[in-house]
Amino acid sequence: MRGSLVIAGLGPGNDALITPEVQDALDRATDIVGYIPYVARIAARPGLTLHPSDNRVEIDRSRLALDMACNGRQVVVVSSGDPSVFAMASAVFEAVEHGEPDWRDLDIQVLPGITAMLAASAACGAPLGHDFCAINLSDNLKPWDLIEKRLRLAGEADFAMAFYNPRSKSRPEGFAKALKTLQDTCNDARPIIFARNVSRPDQTINIVPLTEATPDMADMRTVVLLGSSRTRIIQRNGTPFVYTPRSVEG
Amino acid sequence: MRGSLVIAGLGPGNDALITPEVQDALDRATDIVGYIPYVARIAARPGLTLHPSDNRVEIDRSRLALDMACNGRQVVVVSSGDPSVFAMASAVFEAVEHGEPDWRDLDIQVLPGITAMLAASAACGAPLGHDFCAINLSDNLKPWDLIEKRLRLAGEADFAMAFYNPRSKSRPEGFAKALKTLQDTCNDARPIIFARNVSRPDQTINIVPLTEATPDMADMRTVVLLGSSRTRIIQRNGTPFVYTPRSVEG
Repeated sequence: MRGSLVIAGLGPGNDALITPEVQDALDRATDIVGYIPYVARIAARPGLTLHPSDNRVEIDRSRLALDMACNGRQVVVVSSGDPSVFAMASAVFEAVEHGEPDWRDLDIQVLPGITAMLAASAACGAPLGHDFCAINLSDNLKPWDLIEKRLRLAGEADFAMAFYNPRSKSRPEGFAKALKTLQDTCNDARPIIFARNVSRPDQTINIVPLTEATPDMADMRTVVLLGSSRTRIIQRNGTPFVYTPRSVEG
Repeated sequence: MRGSLVIAGLGPGNDALITPEVQDALDRATDIVGYIPYVARIAARPGLTLHPSDNRVEIDRSRLALDMACNGRQVVVVSSGDPSVFAMASAVFEAVEHGEPDWRDLDIQVLPGITAMLAASAACGAPLGHDFCAINLSDNLKPWDLIEKRLRLAGEADFAMAFYNPRSKSRPEGFAKALKTLQDTCNDARPIIFARNVSRPDQTINIVPLTEATPDMADMRTVVLLGSSRTRIIQRNGTPFVYTPRSVEG
């Protein structure tokens, strides 16, 4: 049987957000490859081998998956959220570009998933309801100057914004610098949303004015959303709704 | 029975991209509200009333849905893609903010969906694999100058970009102007992807250098993706893969 490689998005954590297309690929797989906590979401069954691996070994993991697919296995690389959005799809294609010539002609498919920023946006209303950008705040793979530049230009463009990987143990100071840049650039009290464990039973949504945001409000399980200058809060009994209007006028 | 309002994303067209969470809401609905072609995706059944409406009546549609929910109905407003991304969620919250006080305390939930740009990115590799922005090119609700400004700043930030509503019959010239701005700002031959009817049986993916893109390559059924300056093409037998590396170095 000819091998195949599927790069599948499991969504942000709630299994009710896994698309039937992805579930079907998982059901037909012989091998599941991915970061330990994502592989742990897949139930064991006869004929399925699980290959969990640690963080920061994305290229090794991709090469393992490509090699198995070349040897006739039905391999699924699992990503949290959507595989395109700061996840495994780019790593696999990097491995393809710089790897064995045979890998280019493999049957490789990317299956989209619900990415964390859209689950977080849904959880509090529609803060990403107008033009927006998504920025990875990790400086593992890009210089901090570029992150700063993108934050300033995104503020100038008046995008709503989503931030992935705001903070980790190895980079405790980065998010403090990012917040300072955003506070200086935006210079107003627009809402910023800290969505932790989004879509899971222990989800928390913390909405504060940008002027009052502090670095400790985010950790590695948080996706952060920032409104544009036009983002609105609707007060009500319970958690308010936050949304960005479709129109820039009125 | 207490009424409720769910704003649900149906994904870009293929029913295998509808999440179980959304399917469950559709199965429990008494009333489905939305734009004609999206409501047409929902099968009729006893106890379910379909309320299709035309384009550009988003606020009226929202008010109808809110009013029915206030009267005890289980209402689902359907959007294509994800409800937050240039779709119905913002319209409903606009109606809530400016409407009846009772509407604020309704049980309103947004359920995320697979948005077109992520399905298009998956269909050709991972062109949105690094920092990116999403811009609606329709100038129905914002001035063209703001679109131009965002395009220039997004180019300066070196974001990958996704463009929704690139072209319609009523705005034939807008996309030509946008392309010209992008060609001037980016000033290179990075790939631009025209993904039409994404996820449907008649999906087409057209990848061309930005320098050779022409306005007629997009229509109202197309989502357009533009790489960053670092986006790569992997040539192979068949359609090439396009991806944006995770790293900005090397």
